[in-house]
Amino acid sequence: MARVSQEHLDARRRQILDGAALCFARNGFHATSMQDVLKEVDLSAGAVYRYFSGKDELITAIVREVLEEVRNAFEDATRQGAPSGPPPPPDVVAGKVLGRMLRIWSRLTVDGEPAFPRLILQIWSETLRNAQLAAVLTDVFVALRERWVWAVEAYQEAGMMPPDIPAEHVARTMIATVQGFVAQQALFGPAPVEVLQDGLRALTGMREPDATRSADHSSVNLNETRSN
Amino acid sequence: MARVSQEHLDARRRQILDGAALCFARNGFHATSMQDVLKEVDLSAGAVYRYFSGKDELITAIVREVLEEVRNAFEDATRQGAPSGPPPPPDVVAGKVLGRMLRIWSRLTVDGEPAFPRLILQIWSETLRNAQLAAVLTDVFVALRERWVWAVEAYQEAGMMPPDIPAEHVARTMIATVQGFVAQQALFGPAPVEVLQDGLRALTGMREPDATRSADHSSVNLNETRSN
Repeated sequence: MARVSQEHLDARRRQILDGAALCFARNGFHATSMQDVLKEVDLSAGAVYRYFSGKDELITAIVREVLEEVRNAFEDATRQGAPSGPPPPPDVVAGKVLGRMLRIWSRLTVDGEPAFPRLILQIWSETLRNAQLAAVLTDVFVALRERWVWAVEAYQEAGMMPPDIPAEHVARTMIATVQGFVAQQALFGPAPVEVLQDGLRALTGMREPDATRSADHSSVNLNETRSN
Repeated sequence: MARVSQEHLDARRRQILDGAALCFARNGFHATSMQDVLKEVDLSAGAVYRYFSGKDELITAIVREVLEEVRNAFEDATRQGAPSGPPPPPDVVAGKVLGRMLRIWSRLTVDGEPAFPRLILQIWSETLRNAQLAAVLTDVFVALRERWVWAVEAYQEAGMMPPDIPAEHVARTMIATVQGFVAQQALFGPAPVEVLQDGLRALTGMREPDATRSADHSSVNLNETRSN
């Protein structure tokens, strides 16, 4: 048999994963058959099964790839703060990570719109009845939460965020915000990442109602004075 | 024929909607048949079709009901501010609305966990290939966005939020945060609404890194000084 270069193997693998991702984004995991994937990538069953044993392995590979990309994007986004200082504020981190994910996946479209948000929504829905996929997705969630907890603790140590709020709660909220924004793209069409960044900047820029009436730079922190 | 009271008709309708919601939350819209719904509610086809023509009408009724509940919850939550003053801060509004939704729907469970978050996720996924449902869901989104835009503009007028950020971007971000938190409940198990409220309070309580070093109540607004 002819020897096949690693580049060729990698390209073939990429081709199969992209085709499968497109099928899943279009019709969901449940309604997609391996036959659909073969047709999409225009390869023989033998060629595809050499790389992946079936749909479960395909979706697991895709989810793990997304996790790896998010991890890298997060590392890069948080490194952009001052050396040894806290990471950039939440709108910058969330915007950079999500923006990079959407860019990486922009090669795949469904009906002219980005496939990535649809793919994410389909994966969530499939997770509800696929225990193996649920385990993989929980890994992603735990890894993301750890990274956000680290960022939140850095904000708190730098005096940028109220120290008495559990970092994990803030981490979950940050992830929720990005998750929801991705869901909106799938459900109501694309929106620039700047929308989310604006929203987060508005939240982190909140202060007490009377702040504008006092002198410059003397705004009162919202959490200290509100009785809730 | 015996006359049937309005209470009886309403109770029957409620019974059918709850049974359908349970089926959809469990298996998704696509994999649920009208036969499954009949079995779940333990009624004859004649009794059910008297109220709903099929799955599409059932899911539309459920989504419209959720919309109505969210609207009422939002009105009540925002009215709890000072008279003629701005509404309570975002963590209070979001927490009250989501908390009430989860409470109303707590009567329905799947495998001992709240069915509501799963139902929402299944509706989103079905929306990707059901144009009629997509239209209904867009109505919900537009209505929610309008209400949040109103709240954001009130925050801005009261000097509580940077005035130069488009209110619609903040509205989308707030909705995204709640959407993502609901998705997390479906994917990773229930979490108290206080988690989200803590996270939002941490964000709205952010300030510049050096704030703790200056005197009390002299924190600098994050948006005014950061070069982004």
